[in-house]
Amino acid sequence: MLAGLLLLTVGLLTGCHSAKNQQPGLWSLYSQGIQQATYVDLTHTITPSMPRGEAFAPIRFARTPNPLTHRPFDYPTEGVGITSYTLTTDQLGTQLDPPAHWTPDYAAIDELPPTFTLRPLVVISIVEQLRRQPGYHLQVADIRAWEKKYGLIPEGSVVFVRSDWSKRWDDPRLTQERVFAGVSLQALQWLHGQRHILFHGHEPLETDTTAIRAGEAWLLRHGYTQAEGLCKLDQAPPAGALVAIGYPKFGGGTGSYARFVAICPADWPYGVRIDATKESPLPRQPKPLHWDQAAGMRVR
Amino acid sequence: MLAGLLLLTVGLLTGCHSAKNQQPGLWSLYSQGIQQATYVDLTHTITPSMPRGEAFAPIRFARTPNPLTHRPFDYPTEGVGITSYTLTTDQLGTQLDPPAHWTPDYAAIDELPPTFTLRPLVVISIVEQLRRQPGYHLQVADIRAWEKKYGLIPEGSVVFVRSDWSKRWDDPRLTQERVFAGVSLQALQWLHGQRHILFHGHEPLETDTTAIRAGEAWLLRHGYTQAEGLCKLDQAPPAGALVAIGYPKFGGGTGSYARFVAICPADWPYGVRIDATKESPLPRQPKPLHWDQAAGMRVR
Repeated sequence: MLAGLLLLTVGLLTGCHSAKNQQPGLWSLYSQGIQQATYVDLTHTITPSMPRGEAFAPIRFARTPNPLTHRPFDYPTEGVGITSYTLTTDQLGTQLDPPAHWTPDYAAIDELPPTFTLRPLVVISIVEQLRRQPGYHLQVADIRAWEKKYGLIPEGSVVFVRSDWSKRWDDPRLTQERVFAGVSLQALQWLHGQRHILFHGHEPLETDTTAIRAGEAWLLRHGYTQAEGLCKLDQAPPAGALVAIGYPKFGGGTGSYARFVAICPADWPYGVRIDATKESPLPRQPKPLHWDQAAGMRVR
Repeated sequence: MLAGLLLLTVGLLTGCHSAKNQQPGLWSLYSQGIQQATYVDLTHTITPSMPRGEAFAPIRFARTPNPLTHRPFDYPTEGVGITSYTLTTDQLGTQLDPPAHWTPDYAAIDELPPTFTLRPLVVISIVEQLRRQPGYHLQVADIRAWEKKYGLIPEGSVVFVRSDWSKRWDDPRLTQERVFAGVSLQALQWLHGQRHILFHGHEPLETDTTAIRAGEAWLLRHGYTQAEGLCKLDQAPPAGALVAIGYPKFGGGTGSYARFVAICPADWPYGVRIDATKESPLPRQPKPLHWDQAAGMRVR
């Protein structure tokens, strides 16, 4: 029996050891958790009426004209819908700022390496602090308090600061307000210097309320990136999710029209699950899409 | 000693058991393979001189003017670079076509569920077939041959058709050619009907060479999506990689300016690895970015 137990022990040791050392295939990792995950879109929809910085002229959507028929590419006229966009700025809505927004010596949006794609997501809330002090900025102490609860922020992760600022996105006064949730320069320097994160992000369209934009200036003049205009951070877990990062690859681009999706654990109460019956084919919509002249875009 | 071994055995059994049954956290899955992966960007850079369909007017980049100073937002004038885009079409470069491109009853680009984010990637090559027969279209037999080598195509995966068409992207004659690599309607119906894939993608800007665009029409009139204008599929493995899917969220949008990044196994010879020293901060570029009037964009 002793020999049997010894063999069993060795077998188990070997089993555990090889399971640990074997690099699981990416498809296997996918089916172990990403497939069962729940997906939360952290991105604002781009529309002609969306909030934008005061310096920028309105953006415009239009139906692309067909040069052969001189009619717009639309369902009743040409059988297909094609859209053109006049985008007066790349500093719009949900964005990933490359350092070339401020500094020509660092990467433009198309020069970020393709490793800016999928990372552990950390969400630090300052909602309580803002209730006591409107215009509160994330401090190093808030990050340390997060780490006390959830452990060290992983190197290379993406850290989003939840302020719920985006919940008033439809309020036209929002982007005019000079007191808003921010991220302190010290917090940014700590996240990059001590935790070596990939980038941070916040809900407002500016990083802080200093006259010199201290945080954004430091980041973009030192080769760092940052995300702005995030939403639905109240629906992402503080720890344990991943974030997918996407943006169009404009040559020499100084901004982006980014997409951030949180991939959350299967038992997380928010988000949408993978469901073949709702994806491919997609379900019929209750109303048809059509061009709306007043809205300046296609709506249902 | 027997008691000790028994305890050890129980401990190991419990350890192995719990490791197997416990749903691994997403951060743990990330650190088990995604972090060590190699990343290949399958996306063309958007530039004013890029190939586009004959029906579309040129696209234009410009430096956004500062309304206060009447100077362009550029490094020498305003200390920051901001760019505006006149995009005459959303059928441009690397794209993800939502079914609303053809059919108003199905999802526009902003209505795709956020589960269109990260999937197993299958790459089926028809490069050999094209050598024998220019204008070859992917057939069901080619998919079956792929499955003989690599196993069943996973449900919900993304299937990209490699033709190397994109290797001639800089050749101005390319988009005028009427004989090009395609995907047969039968292959598309088989991939969706038999394998329930999320979507397929191809390198050319059209799905097939039929006068009625049979494949695209069937897909987009039945609620399916498709990717077009892919590149570097020769640098992605036939099986075992994941693909990250990103695109701007234009309200009621009929096309996209998409980003696809292949996340490939650690031992794959192509692609870029996560490396904190090259990402955050990003390295200084050898030359500064500047506005080039002739190119109509910022270049180095």
